[in-house]
Amino acid sequence: MGLPINTAGVVDRLTQMVGSRATTARGVLEQHGRSEAYHASRPPDVVVFPETTEEVAEIVKLCASVGLPVVPFGAGTSLEGNAAAVEGGLCFDFSRMNRILAVHDKDMDVVVQPGITRKQLNAQLRDTGLFFPIDPGADASIGGMASTRASGTMAVRYGTMKDNVMALEVVLADGRIIRTARRARKSSAGYDLTRLFVGSEGTLGILTEITLKLHPWPQAISSAVCSFTSLHDAVETAIEIIQSGIPVARVELLDDVMMRGINGYAKFGYREAPTLFFEFHGTDAGVAEQAELAQAIAAEHGGLGFEWARAAEERSRLWQARDNTLYAGLSLKPGARAMITDVCVPISRLAECLVENRRDVEANGLIAPIVGHVGDGNFHMLILIDPDNADEVARAKALHARLVARAIAMDGTCTGEHGVGLGKIDFLRDELGDTVDVMRGIKAALDPRHLMNPGKIFRRAEVTP
Amino acid sequence: MGLPINTAGVVDRLTQMVGSRATTARGVLEQHGRSEAYHASRPPDVVVFPETTEEVAEIVKLCASVGLPVVPFGAGTSLEGNAAAVEGGLCFDFSRMNRILAVHDKDMDVVVQPGITRKQLNAQLRDTGLFFPIDPGADASIGGMASTRASGTMAVRYGTMKDNVMALEVVLADGRIIRTARRARKSSAGYDLTRLFVGSEGTLGILTEITLKLHPWPQAISSAVCSFTSLHDAVETAIEIIQSGIPVARVELLDDVMMRGINGYAKFGYREAPTLFFEFHGTDAGVAEQAELAQAIAAEHGGLGFEWARAAEERSRLWQARDNTLYAGLSLKPGARAMITDVCVPISRLAECLVENRRDVEANGLIAPIVGHVGDGNFHMLILIDPDNADEVARAKALHARLVARAIAMDGTCTGEHGVGLGKIDFLRDELGDTVDVMRGIKAALDPRHLMNPGKIFRRAEVTP
Repeated sequence: MGLPINTAGVVDRLTQMVGSRATTARGVLEQHGRSEAYHASRPPDVVVFPETTEEVAEIVKLCASVGLPVVPFGAGTSLEGNAAAVEGGLCFDFSRMNRILAVHDKDMDVVVQPGITRKQLNAQLRDTGLFFPIDPGADASIGGMASTRASGTMAVRYGTMKDNVMALEVVLADGRIIRTARRARKSSAGYDLTRLFVGSEGTLGILTEITLKLHPWPQAISSAVCSFTSLHDAVETAIEIIQSGIPVARVELLDDVMMRGINGYAKFGYREAPTLFFEFHGTDAGVAEQAELAQAIAAEHGGLGFEWARAAEERSRLWQARDNTLYAGLSLKPGARAMITDVCVPISRLAECLVENRRDVEANGLIAPIVGHVGDGNFHMLILIDPDNADEVARAKALHARLVARAIAMDGTCTGEHGVGLGKIDFLRDELGDTVDVMRGIKAALDPRHLMNPGKIFRRAEVTP
Repeated sequence: MGLPINTAGVVDRLTQMVGSRATTARGVLEQHGRSEAYHASRPPDVVVFPETTEEVAEIVKLCASVGLPVVPFGAGTSLEGNAAAVEGGLCFDFSRMNRILAVHDKDMDVVVQPGITRKQLNAQLRDTGLFFPIDPGADASIGGMASTRASGTMAVRYGTMKDNVMALEVVLADGRIIRTARRARKSSAGYDLTRLFVGSEGTLGILTEITLKLHPWPQAISSAVCSFTSLHDAVETAIEIIQSGIPVARVELLDDVMMRGINGYAKFGYREAPTLFFEFHGTDAGVAEQAELAQAIAAEHGGLGFEWARAAEERSRLWQARDNTLYAGLSLKPGARAMITDVCVPISRLAECLVENRRDVEANGLIAPIVGHVGDGNFHMLILIDPDNADEVARAKALHARLVARAIAMDGTCTGEHGVGLGKIDFLRDELGDTVDVMRGIKAALDPRHLMNPGKIFRRAEVTP
């Protein structure tokens, strides 16, 4: 794919600015068009590895001057094609902007560059007694997690990126650099631009610095696994635990199909039934009390006993089982790719949604294991497909569309945590109707030429009059 | 104040639409220009008491057609002139839209109209086992609280309005009705319009329906008061309690001056020293453990013993002392008015900020008691002034400006929870610089004619080219 005519000199100019940190090597381009998702690779025309905010701003100005699209790229773990360069252009790879800029332990916050991954961050925070709890499974970059409003397993206790980003530095479409907030824990000073940029998927500006809330490591942690005879019982258990005010740190649901995948993939010997994975955080006494209350609730709903993991190594093994769901799921159908989707519904509708979906999966002869952040009503389905089997792909797409329609009909959302990217564009209006026009108006106000990660959240046709 | 020429027929038209629920009675107009704040009364030209969203939308269209400003009004408890009709126009009084539309107890959420007050809401929720925790002291309306991004005493545990509003129905400047989100606990479906409207003070649209998170009533609650020999010790105690992960539900700081006011106003016999008011929520065992840990930390910092209030009546009396700080403060200077301000700083700077401010107050011969949500680094100062004493008013204004400048220099904000309104307009750019231009761009996109609560957050001159 060649550069558009009006950008012929851009690569030369970039090379003058950042030397070999600008590249058009085919392998690098290809790598930056792909993600872990099923979406086709859409490589950019040039990849730049910036080292400072000022570099990003200068390069954004250069791109603006020639009309070249700009796409930010973190760790490449997004699932809806959020960083695919659908119109080509320049990709910023933030792997060289991965430093902690300041730790404020008394204030329990940290200022980081966007390229740092959550595991890098927590490793470097180890001596502070503080940690960053958002855990989407993959070792995603903080910039990417902020951009997609990520959440994951601990959101039920610690919130999502929306709740844990305190302030942002952003390079706007015209190269201006702004800060959305100062470092107060809360503020009523004007519009909440922090939350506007969180989840905007790079379509309103490029995040170059992120201030995050941290949390104290709990004194005690314990984890447990409990299986159930039905999805309904597992979900009711989760609802009741949350309603009774138990501050559960994690409560993950895996269906029987996914449990079969985990057993096969990682040689576990779990019961192949709907299963909840729990984690409790608190004082020694607090964790013991939470666990006891949760066990009693599970028992009332036919829970088949708690299998505990209290030592750090056991816990790590248990959560590794949970975190390997992508590969565990894929192992159920050798050679398959996974069409991964996520929806989120009010928790009162979750069991119904899961049961109806299961019936739909089976009626269509597909394999589609489920894993969910059940405390939030959020779950993922991995539809296993042979990409060369056009009929299977068509059935998978139709199943996916019906799941999303079902979630929306239940007053839920087409994406709980993966973002819109490419994969949910067609569903956004089903969910929000004319509200999408208000989003487009904001997009037009901040990025009138539609150069910031174009083709995401909205189609080009929707934003170009 | 007469209606502008081009709106001569508006009142007639309104009367046709809503009968006597539109009024130009002088007393009603005056009442809607005032608030609890020190800002001068700025009455609207007409007040309408709408009963449905559709009525609001039709009336907004009417106002748009003649260029009449629109100002939403809840319970009139805002503190920065947020609902003053500085350009006249139409005021919506939402007191007739004060119903609960749906309680979803399993999902722990509730859908309400904007005029319901937080106390009305909690009274009606009593039988559900759930409650709405945001408590700014005054019995504010939920619409007003959402509009100013209110928080109050329990934010340290339960978050602010930003964290507890799940979705909004909004009437836009052109009369369109949108919903910002569905009822999922979390979503990554496009821009976070919910958070954009929360805290926008009616300048982007009118909130007509609000979906709120609810929380289970804790099994046990206990409250305590502890005084200290210095502000520094009190603040360090609060910091350490939070850092140690104790999920304190409330931790309020009152300085010695405020304690003197409380003793005098409500005949309490508290020590007139910097004092923390605590509340702990949890299970019986959990509350006991939290209390024990907090007491140990306070003792290390010279805390002068905990005075407990465990029974509901005792607790209510204790928190009434706290909630009466406005009147208690005013009692320190008979006949005075209070210039009330709030700032929020990173908690590591809080003691320094308070001590420097105290020195400033004393050097200027003013009386200015302090009450703060110390867990968030947020505090209020009530500068007691004789409005007829021009010199005192000037000294108070200068003190206020220096406090805000100090908070901003410490990486804090000019308002933690009262909003910008009129009182903080001049400080917003000091805090956020050119970021204010981005806010203005969003304002222009959503309200191009600047009719929605004009003159708040931005000056007219800033938004009219």
